[in-house]
Amino acid sequence: MQAQISKKVAPSFSKAALKSFYRRYRTKSATISTPILGLDLPDIWTPPSCTRPLLPNPVGNAPTAKVIDGNSIAEEIRSEIADEVSRMKDAIAKVPGLAVIIVGQRKDSQTYVRNKIKACQEVGIASLMAEFPEDSAEDEVVRAVASFNDNPSVHGILVQLPLPQHMDEEKILNTVSLEKDVDGFHPLNMGNLAMRGREPLFIPCTPKGCIELLLRSGIEIMGKKAVVIGRSNIVGTPTSLLLQRHHATVSVIHAYTRNPDVIAREADIVVSAVGVANLVRGDWLKPGAVVIDVGINPVEDPSSKHGYHLTGDVCYEEALPVVSAITPVPGGVGPMTIAMLLSNTLNSAKRAFRFS
Amino acid sequence: MQAQISKKVAPSFSKAALKSFYRRYRTKSATISTPILGLDLPDIWTPPSCTRPLLPNPVGNAPTAKVIDGNSIAEEIRSEIADEVSRMKDAIAKVPGLAVIIVGQRKDSQTYVRNKIKACQEVGIASLMAEFPEDSAEDEVVRAVASFNDNPSVHGILVQLPLPQHMDEEKILNTVSLEKDVDGFHPLNMGNLAMRGREPLFIPCTPKGCIELLLRSGIEIMGKKAVVIGRSNIVGTPTSLLLQRHHATVSVIHAYTRNPDVIAREADIVVSAVGVANLVRGDWLKPGAVVIDVGINPVEDPSSKHGYHLTGDVCYEEALPVVSAITPVPGGVGPMTIAMLLSNTLNSAKRAFRFS
Repeated sequence: MQAQISKKVAPSFSKAALKSFYRRYRTKSATISTPILGLDLPDIWTPPSCTRPLLPNPVGNAPTAKVIDGNSIAEEIRSEIADEVSRMKDAIAKVPGLAVIIVGQRKDSQTYVRNKIKACQEVGIASLMAEFPEDSAEDEVVRAVASFNDNPSVHGILVQLPLPQHMDEEKILNTVSLEKDVDGFHPLNMGNLAMRGREPLFIPCTPKGCIELLLRSGIEIMGKKAVVIGRSNIVGTPTSLLLQRHHATVSVIHAYTRNPDVIAREADIVVSAVGVANLVRGDWLKPGAVVIDVGINPVEDPSSKHGYHLTGDVCYEEALPVVSAITPVPGGVGPMTIAMLLSNTLNSAKRAFRFS
Repeated sequence: MQAQISKKVAPSFSKAALKSFYRRYRTKSATISTPILGLDLPDIWTPPSCTRPLLPNPVGNAPTAKVIDGNSIAEEIRSEIADEVSRMKDAIAKVPGLAVIIVGQRKDSQTYVRNKIKACQEVGIASLMAEFPEDSAEDEVVRAVASFNDNPSVHGILVQLPLPQHMDEEKILNTVSLEKDVDGFHPLNMGNLAMRGREPLFIPCTPKGCIELLLRSGIEIMGKKAVVIGRSNIVGTPTSLLLQRHHATVSVIHAYTRNPDVIAREADIVVSAVGVANLVRGDWLKPGAVVIDVGINPVEDPSSKHGYHLTGDVCYEEALPVVSAITPVPGGVGPMTIAMLLSNTLNSAKRAFRFS
């Protein structure tokens, strides 16, 4: 395997410059205007050990790690969902429905949407699609969302991102009814996920997929030390909240964390969701740890047909002989995300029809 | 100082029993019904080292810790708020207004409410109070909240808890308009606190007070390792989210954490919000750490006039020679909570009047 470190787009400001700005900001501003929420700094990752060559064939310990097979677990879940959909159809002559909105001709978006609709068909979930040309007016998209909101046979609404630059993403997403927000990205969902004694209507798909992988692999979470690398709204943060709900002791590593390798090495469970190829080296991992690798990073690879291959955030080859279980990329978390989208749509329909 | 370990009410189930229940639950339930959100287990703390006597007069290092004076910082903030209120009054002839609702005759609640109203008066914030007898109907309280919602001279509404048993606390709190929820306990606020790029309307008062204490004491948060002990909705969780927004690397310790002392000892900043007297011993703390002690625990003390004295979660006497800065109890976080309530009310009024 020819592994390389992928380069992120060079930022126009260095991390040191940001820190200095932050300090100046704090010192100059009047005490009452000290930013109590902190400054929203971008997470720019500099892989601390990218100069060290990767170890494709480590000597010493033979790999004994269990490979967590996301494809087969997702398949199992999809089959359970198909059973439930068919039970619903038999009992009340209704099926769940997912509506997908896509704007423009981006090839990757088209592929994602096609895969989601195919997955719906396979489990018996009805799917509707609204396609808009790139130069559509924002209003048209908002109206499409509103009409799906009002449609009682739609239980989930998905707006494929990114939207064209001229559209206000937040405005369009905010139009999606809370009861149909199968992506689970609404701040009210996030708040209910964070708070004890409350339950969100939907759990975001990828974090839910990570937890399902752990649960269905028989990995105990309670009382374990978990480290989540990355703090994005759609993966890192909700995953850390979910792990805590399962009574893990959770630490979140981000771009401003000092010695992330030392902190990661203490973890029984590592979930990496950064989007930097090979950030997590073998020596970041405790022997016997469980690794869930959410990253899907294209890495240049002249030997591959497309000129690149996909790799995770974790040096898979280095991790294999160290850890007790690990998800591969591809074939780990990826297939779970769509399975969880189907699961959220099914749950939404059950709620709407009061069917249990 | 005669320090004792306070006893929590003995739970009717042991932590081991809960764990075993949890395991059985997971094993017995069909895979599809695995509780993806985890079980909402109560945090029952057993101080791991309560048999070891406290060390009231440690020998060795002399105490060099800076005592973070919550009284004087809160005073400074209240004076800034008074200036702002007076500036608002001069400019637009309006002042912020806080409405407090109290039901029943609980002595502690009466005291809290009296203190809040006195604090309002001192900074020029108008206060309104609605008092209900213990046996009032839930509907009457809901109507009072609704009427404050509609009152344009009210910018913050506070329902003093606990409410009498026959009232639905969640229903009443949910009636409070989001724009006037100065406590900041609404899940939408929590979600916006957790998510990058978003801002909550209000930050819960005690967590906001903890961060203000750090900022105004010149303690850098960015890049530091922070440990929050406790994960309550009103202190632990929002404090951990705020520390992360300030780019600390945050770990949350709860009752199911193994070796909490080892994890706490790695932290540059420790915030304890558990409510167990003397849980955090001197040897839980790294030399030079900063300690914010949110606990206010009554401990039996025959030598005191009232038969008890107040103590924090942290063994203050043991911590003093170890840490670089610490908040005392009382006189640390406590006075900050009311100051932050005033600050939230002021900010709410500024928003309502578009005054900046």
